[in-house]
Amino acid sequence: MPLIKFFPIFGRLKAYDRHTFKDDLFAGVLTAIILVPQGIAYSVVAGLPPESGLYSSILPPILYAVFGTSQTLSVGPVSIAAIMVASALQAPEIGALGQPVQSALILAAESGLVMMGMALLRMGGLVNFISHPVLNGFTSGASILIIASQLPHMLGLKPPSCGADASCYLVYIENTSMLTLAVGAIAVALLIFFGKPLAFLIRKTGAKPSFITALSKCAPLLTVMLSTLAVSYVPGLGPQQIAVVGSIPSGFPELSLDFFVPEKWRRLLPYSAFIALIAYVESVAIAKVTANLRGEKIVPNNELIALGAANLAAGVSGGMPVAGGFSRTMVNFSAGARTQMAMLIAAGILALAVMFFTPWFENIPKAALAAIILVAIVPLLRLRNIVDTWRYDQGDGLAQLATLAGVLALGIEEGIALGILLTIVSYLRKTSHPHIAVVGRIPGTEHYRNIKRYRVETWQHLLLLRIDDNITFANVNFIEDFINEELALKPGIRHIVLIFNSVSDVDATALEVLENLNRVLQTSRITLHLSEAKGPVLDKLDKTEFFKHLAPGKVYFRTQEAVDELA
Amino acid sequence: MPLIKFFPIFGRLKAYDRHTFKDDLFAGVLTAIILVPQGIAYSVVAGLPPESGLYSSILPPILYAVFGTSQTLSVGPVSIAAIMVASALQAPEIGALGQPVQSALILAAESGLVMMGMALLRMGGLVNFISHPVLNGFTSGASILIIASQLPHMLGLKPPSCGADASCYLVYIENTSMLTLAVGAIAVALLIFFGKPLAFLIRKTGAKPSFITALSKCAPLLTVMLSTLAVSYVPGLGPQQIAVVGSIPSGFPELSLDFFVPEKWRRLLPYSAFIALIAYVESVAIAKVTANLRGEKIVPNNELIALGAANLAAGVSGGMPVAGGFSRTMVNFSAGARTQMAMLIAAGILALAVMFFTPWFENIPKAALAAIILVAIVPLLRLRNIVDTWRYDQGDGLAQLATLAGVLALGIEEGIALGILLTIVSYLRKTSHPHIAVVGRIPGTEHYRNIKRYRVETWQHLLLLRIDDNITFANVNFIEDFINEELALKPGIRHIVLIFNSVSDVDATALEVLENLNRVLQTSRITLHLSEAKGPVLDKLDKTEFFKHLAPGKVYFRTQEAVDELA
Repeated sequence: MPLIKFFPIFGRLKAYDRHTFKDDLFAGVLTAIILVPQGIAYSVVAGLPPESGLYSSILPPILYAVFGTSQTLSVGPVSIAAIMVASALQAPEIGALGQPVQSALILAAESGLVMMGMALLRMGGLVNFISHPVLNGFTSGASILIIASQLPHMLGLKPPSCGADASCYLVYIENTSMLTLAVGAIAVALLIFFGKPLAFLIRKTGAKPSFITALSKCAPLLTVMLSTLAVSYVPGLGPQQIAVVGSIPSGFPELSLDFFVPEKWRRLLPYSAFIALIAYVESVAIAKVTANLRGEKIVPNNELIALGAANLAAGVSGGMPVAGGFSRTMVNFSAGARTQMAMLIAAGILALAVMFFTPWFENIPKAALAAIILVAIVPLLRLRNIVDTWRYDQGDGLAQLATLAGVLALGIEEGIALGILLTIVSYLRKTSHPHIAVVGRIPGTEHYRNIKRYRVETWQHLLLLRIDDNITFANVNFIEDFINEELALKPGIRHIVLIFNSVSDVDATALEVLENLNRVLQTSRITLHLSEAKGPVLDKLDKTEFFKHLAPGKVYFRTQEAVDELA
Repeated sequence: MPLIKFFPIFGRLKAYDRHTFKDDLFAGVLTAIILVPQGIAYSVVAGLPPESGLYSSILPPILYAVFGTSQTLSVGPVSIAAIMVASALQAPEIGALGQPVQSALILAAESGLVMMGMALLRMGGLVNFISHPVLNGFTSGASILIIASQLPHMLGLKPPSCGADASCYLVYIENTSMLTLAVGAIAVALLIFFGKPLAFLIRKTGAKPSFITALSKCAPLLTVMLSTLAVSYVPGLGPQQIAVVGSIPSGFPELSLDFFVPEKWRRLLPYSAFIALIAYVESVAIAKVTANLRGEKIVPNNELIALGAANLAAGVSGGMPVAGGFSRTMVNFSAGARTQMAMLIAAGILALAVMFFTPWFENIPKAALAAIILVAIVPLLRLRNIVDTWRYDQGDGLAQLATLAGVLALGIEEGIALGILLTIVSYLRKTSHPHIAVVGRIPGTEHYRNIKRYRVETWQHLLLLRIDDNITFANVNFIEDFINEELALKPGIRHIVLIFNSVSDVDATALEVLENLNRVLQTSRITLHLSEAKGPVLDKLDKTEFFKHLAPGKVYFRTQEAVDELA
């Protein structure tokens, strides 16, 4: 039992049969076909050599398959993690240390360790505190950064050697390589055509939906193949005219631990922490979508362990940080994957590709990869979503906009941090106004209700207040102010009864404020009482001097008893 | 009316009479007597020349008197702000810029501007989110740092020229100046004697309490005078043997704005922000204590403006960051101060001192000042308080301990930040578990109650859930999980009614999760409904596609209607 808890794969293997395998095989092959161009493309996004993404598609998904709880999540290189790696590598204090490939390994391994640390501390639930508006704003911002990073590849530009003034940008644009742009544009057209238009045309022929899916998902590979063939064999096109991926070493990377450079680990830690956070949040969100559709269950803490192990594996096997990829997972899912065996098959195919076929990848034009990324990323932009969010909830809309603007203006990590901060501050502000009801007795009963909503009996010397929330540092000042305002309005009050039936906790700050309030009330000869307090609250207060200081104030079991005695 | 709102002093002047003035005069003189040694001593704590603290005692309290809402708060140099200034000045990136006096002016002016910015954004309420355990942990930690900063003065040590190894510390201790230690020890003894022992002795003679207070509060001045006389006239003691304050320029500082060095302002901003935060929180806490005792009211936003103006004044008049001081305010209050006129009188006396008496301060031994600080700070240590907090609430105890440890190990700002972070994380964790009740009908009525607490009717196909909190990003995942677990236990359920009578808000994240949940439920042929939703919630949801997606799920006005139709 405990073994299955940590290795969910064993539980599933028992029920595995030939039928399931056939489904997994189809999905696995299809996912692998997407993984090859994506792996190379996302390496380019991250500013790493093309093999980084390929290596990240082998060992990491195998480890996820062993520890993960999603049956269909495709773990490997993803665009958002790639742009976060690029952002870290471009930071001056990281760039100064050199060796970007080594830095990427450290980012992967370190974010893996951060996730495992979060698992140990059972912090899986913390991701709930990254609200969707923040996540959406972040995704939009990161998508814009990815698109901006790919445009030069599409246009065949080299980074400008002059400054950032307008005349320089003109030079930049004049440098556009028309040949490269043509390759990129044709690639984009092909990719778009293989989407809905092709599906629409084929559906008329009565083909099976799974066939249509498979065909349309081959578009990236086909694009890469056609453009590579063009660069290799069409006269006038060639690696001299059009930037290509370049040579990729063949065979497996050596597993290695020689990247342990303490200074680098220390400086990269903040970046790793943010990558861990985002990789985890995005992966769990995607895993949940497919799991819900099949009635399966995702266990957050297991996901932390599984993704942590996958990233650690990426770090020791020459890769880059990994996460669950949305488009790949949806392909895998809709191609009919039943278990993570599909991903093991995909990893096997990638391993074969790395061993035998890397020379074939040498002439892939970067413009074609950029086209694949652009077509994949544009749906993630969702700028319209900000307007919808704003219309629904202004606070959330503001957080989304601030996160997006922060990602673009301040940087990826700063943008996320700003968004989280804003959400939490506005949340704290909201929760700092607990509901408090002045109550009175419904005549002839022992029921006490809000005086604003019911016709109730009240008494001149007695104020009954029902506090409908736990009393904490966040709201105790509001409660104190509320009481003082009530007293200012009703100068005859001699006794206040706080009805505690909704109070499950009184924290240290609240205790101190209540103690002070009681002291001040006593100097004005007003006595504070409690009623209907729950056992745990009474036990907690009993450990302090509170009840001693409350005297002659009492704790009543029922509000009725307080009224009988004080009214 | 609006004028009085911004200048509360005008409201009070109308009722001012000779009697009130007499009270204020006595309190003002007494406070001034404390202010002189404190001002010089806290300058030394901050690592600034002695006049900084004196200048901070003139213009800042005058501005606070004009804008502030507390009648008795004594604004001026305080120990906690002084150690925060010292911490900023010792930071390598600040120290590298040189000119510590200029940096202190910037810290004061900038923290004043931060406070005014907070006032503009009406962020006065945000201080409620610094919980008392964090504040207490911070105070203990800062007190330890202050004591550590004063011990060398008490022992007459110079900073060691060697490194930080053990043998060096021995040299350090061997360098103790016995003469200085003797002066310090006698000063401590005198100060302690003037506390409770003297009051106890005099009370037997039947003296008036106000006389006793006045006498005991003169202890610091008396200590300073006696030790200065000793250094000046006793043969064998002298400025060569015992470190003294040194010469203080006489006359007013020139008001000046020539400290505008953008680079310095930028680097000091984080320090200024923390000083602003702590100065504001501490001042308001102290102001509230005395205001509550007299039934007066503190207006947080006015306090931000008043303290901001006071700090800005400190910055342009050669001072250091200021705040309300606890001991001085208590002296002023218990000496009978009725209005801020007392502080204006004290400021006048300080102005006279700066103009005519600075030569008298030259020979004050630093050891005597250190003794005054030590005796004042020790009561703030309150290490025992951590144990009490821990016993009452472990989470709060942990936050207090972490803040204290953070202040000592990481630095003052880092310690506060850590404490605030811990408190908020643990608060979010707590609030992410809202109360949800599965309810049923009390037979023969239309009342619906928790099935765990009442004997109620339930129906096999129908699940009634009452959600007792607003639905937000922080708790919607818990609610989703709760529903899924209920469904797993009760496979017959076809309809779920969410009773929204306690829900006042559904944020964007919650909406998205509910939409997803609804979609997943629909694939399992389970229909989601709402009942008893409040108007604002319905209006908000109406702006989205939610109700369209809910169909055939409905929104019922009363839960009874849902039961009539679905049961």
